[in-house]
Amino acid sequence: MNKIEELCKFSSATIHEAMGRNGNLPSGIKPIHSKMKVYGRAYTVMTMPRDNVLLHRAYAYAKPGDVIVASCCGFYEAGYWGDLMSLGAKTKGIAGLVIDGCVRDADDIEAMGFPVFSRGLCIRGTSNHGDGTLNEPIIIGDCMIHPGDIIIGDRDGVVVVPQDRMDEAIEKSRAREEKEEKVRKQLREGKTSIQIYGWDKKFGY
Amino acid sequence: MNKIEELCKFSSATIHEAMGRNGNLPSGIKPIHSKMKVYGRAYTVMTMPRDNVLLHRAYAYAKPGDVIVASCCGFYEAGYWGDLMSLGAKTKGIAGLVIDGCVRDADDIEAMGFPVFSRGLCIRGTSNHGDGTLNEPIIIGDCMIHPGDIIIGDRDGVVVVPQDRMDEAIEKSRAREEKEEKVRKQLREGKTSIQIYGWDKKFGY
Amino acid sequence: MNKIEELCKFSSATIHEAMGRNGNLPSGIKPIHSKMKVYGRAYTVMTMPRDNVLLHRAYAYAKPGDVIVASCCGFYEAGYWGDLMSLGAKTKGIAGLVIDGCVRDADDIEAMGFPVFSRGLCIRGTSNHGDGTLNEPIIIGDCMIHPGDIIIGDRDGVVVVPQDRMDEAIEKSRAREEKEEKVRKQLREGKTSIQIYGWDKKFGY
Amino acid sequence: MNKIEELCKFSSATIHEAMGRNGNLPSGIKPIHSKMKVYGRAYTVMTMPRDNVLLHRAYAYAKPGDVIVASCCGFYEAGYWGDLMSLGAKTKGIAGLVIDGCVRDADDIEAMGFPVFSRGLCIRGTSNHGDGTLNEPIIIGDCMIHPGDIIIGDRDGVVVVPQDRMDEAIEKSRAREEKEEKVRKQLREGKTSIQIYGWDKKFGY
Amino acid sequence: MNKIEELCKFSSATIHEAMGRNGNLPSGIKPIHSKMKVYGRAYTVMTMPRDNVLLHRAYAYAKPGDVIVASCCGFYEAGYWGDLMSLGAKTKGIAGLVIDGCVRDADDIEAMGFPVFSRGLCIRGTSNHGDGTLNEPIIIGDCMIHPGDIIIGDRDGVVVVPQDRMDEAIEKSRAREEKEEKVRKQLREGKTSIQIYGWDKKFGY
Amino acid sequence: MNKIEELCKFSSATIHEAMGRNGNLPSGIKPIHSKMKVYGRAYTVMTMPRDNVLLHRAYAYAKPGDVIVASCCGFYEAGYWGDLMSLGAKTKGIAGLVIDGCVRDADDIEAMGFPVFSRGLCIRGTSNHGDGTLNEPIIIGDCMIHPGDIIIGDRDGVVVVPQDRMDEAIEKSRAREEKEEKVRKQLREGKTSIQIYGWDKKFGY
Repeated sequence: MNKIEELCKFSSATIHEAMGRNGNLPSGIKPIHSKMKVYGRAYTVMTMPRDNVLLHRAYAYAKPGDVIVASCCGFYEAGYWGDLMSLGAKTKGIAGLVIDGCVRDADDIEAMGFPVFSRGLCIRGTSNHGDGTLNEPIIIGDCMIHPGDIIIGDRDGVVVVPQDRMDEAIEKSRAREEKEEKVRKQLREGKTSIQIYGWDKKFGY
Repeated sequence: MNKIEELCKFSSATIHEAMGRNGNLPSGIKPIHSKMKVYGRAYTVMTMPRDNVLLHRAYAYAKPGDVIVASCCGFYEAGYWGDLMSLGAKTKGIAGLVIDGCVRDADDIEAMGFPVFSRGLCIRGTSNHGDGTLNEPIIIGDCMIHPGDIIIGDRDGVVVVPQDRMDEAIEKSRAREEKEEKVRKQLREGKTSIQIYGWDKKFGY
Repeated sequence: MNKIEELCKFSSATIHEAMGRNGNLPSGIKPIHSKMKVYGRAYTVMTMPRDNVLLHRAYAYAKPGDVIVASCCGFYEAGYWGDLMSLGAKTKGIAGLVIDGCVRDADDIEAMGFPVFSRGLCIRGTSNHGDGTLNEPIIIGDCMIHPGDIIIGDRDGVVVVPQDRMDEAIEKSRAREEKEEKVRKQLREGKTSIQIYGWDKKFGY
Repeated sequence: MNKIEELCKFSSATIHEAMGRNGNLPSGIKPIHSKMKVYGRAYTVMTMPRDNVLLHRAYAYAKPGDVIVASCCGFYEAGYWGDLMSLGAKTKGIAGLVIDGCVRDADDIEAMGFPVFSRGLCIRGTSNHGDGTLNEPIIIGDCMIHPGDIIIGDRDGVVVVPQDRMDEAIEKSRAREEKEEKVRKQLREGKTSIQIYGWDKKFGY
Repeated sequence: MNKIEELCKFSSATIHEAMGRNGNLPSGIKPIHSKMKVYGRAYTVMTMPRDNVLLHRAYAYAKPGDVIVASCCGFYEAGYWGDLMSLGAKTKGIAGLVIDGCVRDADDIEAMGFPVFSRGLCIRGTSNHGDGTLNEPIIIGDCMIHPGDIIIGDRDGVVVVPQDRMDEAIEKSRAREEKEEKVRKQLREGKTSIQIYGWDKKFGY
Repeated sequence: MNKIEELCKFSSATIHEAMGRNGNLPSGIKPIHSKMKVYGRAYTVMTMPRDNVLLHRAYAYAKPGDVIVASCCGFYEAGYWGDLMSLGAKTKGIAGLVIDGCVRDADDIEAMGFPVFSRGLCIRGTSNHGDGTLNEPIIIGDCMIHPGDIIIGDRDGVVVVPQDRMDEAIEKSRAREEKEEKVRKQLREGKTSIQIYGWDKKFGY
């Protein structure tokens, strides 16, 4: 099991907390089906609004296991990605798509088991001008994503871990999980979190 | 069967109509799974944006059967509540959460069958300052909620019934249901609602 | 099989593309269940915000197979349509509802298999003043819909085809499908779309 | 002095209150200069988003003294009106423009003293397709405006008075003004409004 | 010169920075005229949406020199305050109004020189139910305001200083001003801020 | 008179139209005073949300006559620029700032006559991390701006002209102006635009 697989056993929320509450993408970016999960290294795209040439190019150039991560410059109302691109990307071994914009052909994408996280579904077509950037740093929400950063997405949302901090992320997520498991045990015994954390004394009633 | 159980047999929409079209929370507040329902007396919380100490305190102080109802002062983009808090609250017998903000750990919360109604799912963590109010009147949307008010939530939305009007709500909801059942019968026979209500004459064509 | 049935075998996205990227309604209008589909001729409604008399009248006047298509003048936060109206409309043979506003009684509507596409679910009741227009051209998003236009809706969204261009829509959708099937074959063989479209040369790397 | 001139001596807020808190257009519609005022009978326009043919036609067909009142179907980000149209309209004796969208050439319009109330200023050009309606009822915000209704606009906003209620509007506005003048006198003497209205007793402290 | 007068010589931005980048109200709250300034101790109000009884009561109970600071629970589209209330408040010596909602009668308010900071101008009238709170802590944006806190508002925005930190605010603002004056001198001599702050070395080119 | 000075005699709206309705920045970006105008070559900046190091660096590196054009990645609620930076930039001969975010110290900036176009005024301070890009292509709204492109801004808005199309822009703007002057003459004589453009025949009545 490689390190990304180790990391992806933790939820996006756990990793986000473990990394000091960093790396969260906007909550509007969600899987098109609640059971979809995605993980891998980011191949980054910034595309002009309403254009998707760079997304076609991205999955052609990315390596197997990569996740395409795309900014559409704040314009969501277009179907930047569909079933054909999903088929092409899946065939190439691409791990999934995280896009700050909409997609279409949700049924087909879901049927082929290709993970897509987006702002929603939109049928509106795109142009073919091809402006933007490929595999350079991009910004989504208040998070900068560098090519090669680790992406973990689940129903709750998407988190980005800087590639040189993966060991730290695994270790801290595991520590957090262990700590939470102890809290869970106490909660099941009827203690409340304010007792467990000592907040009953700190905040009183 | 107590009165809240009697009331909760009616849908949120029916109760809202029966009470003179009052008590509806904003439609953006929805169950994290469409089959979730919630009912009980409100234990109210107003928390500062991005802080969740008061939610920890709320479920510790609330009575079994209470629903935690929380305003986050208009800031939705945070995961104010998660699986640990759900476990703690469920263990204490809390009936559910209605929050004008986001939550996280949706899969775990759903698995334990704890009803959560929220603005959506967000992994972004919260702080621990503890400002706000507990069990005092709060305002969500254009609805004031007093501690002890009755909360009924289903897939369509959430309605609030003032605690001293529960009998009225049950009675009027039942009357409305009976009236609607008669309309249903006529509709099945092929009459249209404008015929049943006499609107064909009132509005003509 | 009539022509609308022929057309509705294509997805909303395919038809939108085939018709030159036209006819797409705003992506916020979605089926209340992801498996719902709708198709038929538009019976158009423009209702004043928060009023639903015209929707009652619409399903009474529309012909079997028609789809009620309604603008609520930009005000979404009301439950303009519910289970009784769905029952009445379904009994009359109405094919479904597409509304630029919210609805309620989602469980009942879903159970009776009446397709409803809306901005979401909202319990807030409506008034009975009756202002607006019936079966006249309406505008939703940047799309004008004339009475009798063809409506096709699925999980991805809703597309409108001018009634006098149905043959063209069928033919062009079929042509697009055939072209896409060829692309699919090449994608499965490992080619990427930039190779298939010749974009690898046009845009280089 | 005709009746509209009599009515326009009252502020938009006074008329809105006098008419039972009705007829207010959305507060986002404001004069392009805070000292501009507009009054006259509505010549109504509904134009497709991003198109302005109907506005050209509107001022050509409207009568001197009319105010062009236009809905742009919720799409504001275009310059639907500019200096040439203002010159043409002013030359024809049109009293002004109230538009639920943006305009451009603000300096020139201001210099020629033609009153324009809009959502803001935007340079983005429009198309020339010509779809929409002329001099039929339109809806802006939650207000229906019929051709011939009275429009009064000032810095605070815009109010619409049904044409058959102008006498009532004048009378009630005058009555309200007189009542307010008495309140003003008491306020200047140091009484507070809760004393004047008896709210000190009703609401206590 | 008392301490508030000492503090109000600094701009809202300077005080905000000096206090560690705290206390800023949302930037949407602006003076109705760009030259208006306001300062004083906060008399706090939380009113239900669309209701203004508590604002009438607020100015009656507040002390001369107080600034009424009001939350309207996120609903801006109403004219919560007007010329009569301004006259009453001014007569009582109230220093001004800061409201997270709209007001009306802007010309009259401006003419009497009563400072009003609001979300904008709106003629839509309010109800008289009287729900909410008076002179208790309120939250606007992500800022909690306690009765007696110091309010400073100018064209750039509004800042809140906790009442027990006024000395600190004066001292730190003065220090910041002095530091900025030195920077200004260097800037006038042709140095750039990256040279002055040493950022040319830190960030390179 | 150089070419930029020649071009800037035309309004932003005229240039936008002349260039085929291209190059318009979002209408929310406006001068902080309605009489401000800006023109020059773009020195482009993309800064992370809430950070302004790159803006300090930008004016230090830009050439006299350049306009700093900055994207803040969609986050407006911060005061990215103020009086010190304006002083530094003005001293260096920078022609102005166009920023898709807020600024502060509006009075001081206005007093020194440094043109600033922004989303509004906000006192909220920024951090000093320094992430982003300098003098590389950026995207604001649906417009890509390359370093060296020509920026023209006035009260109506801001337009971008590709640097290699300046001659075309001047020529086409002049042609448009001349054409409009002829229309103006006809309008003054009482013709309407539908007559002048032949739309009275095309669209009928």
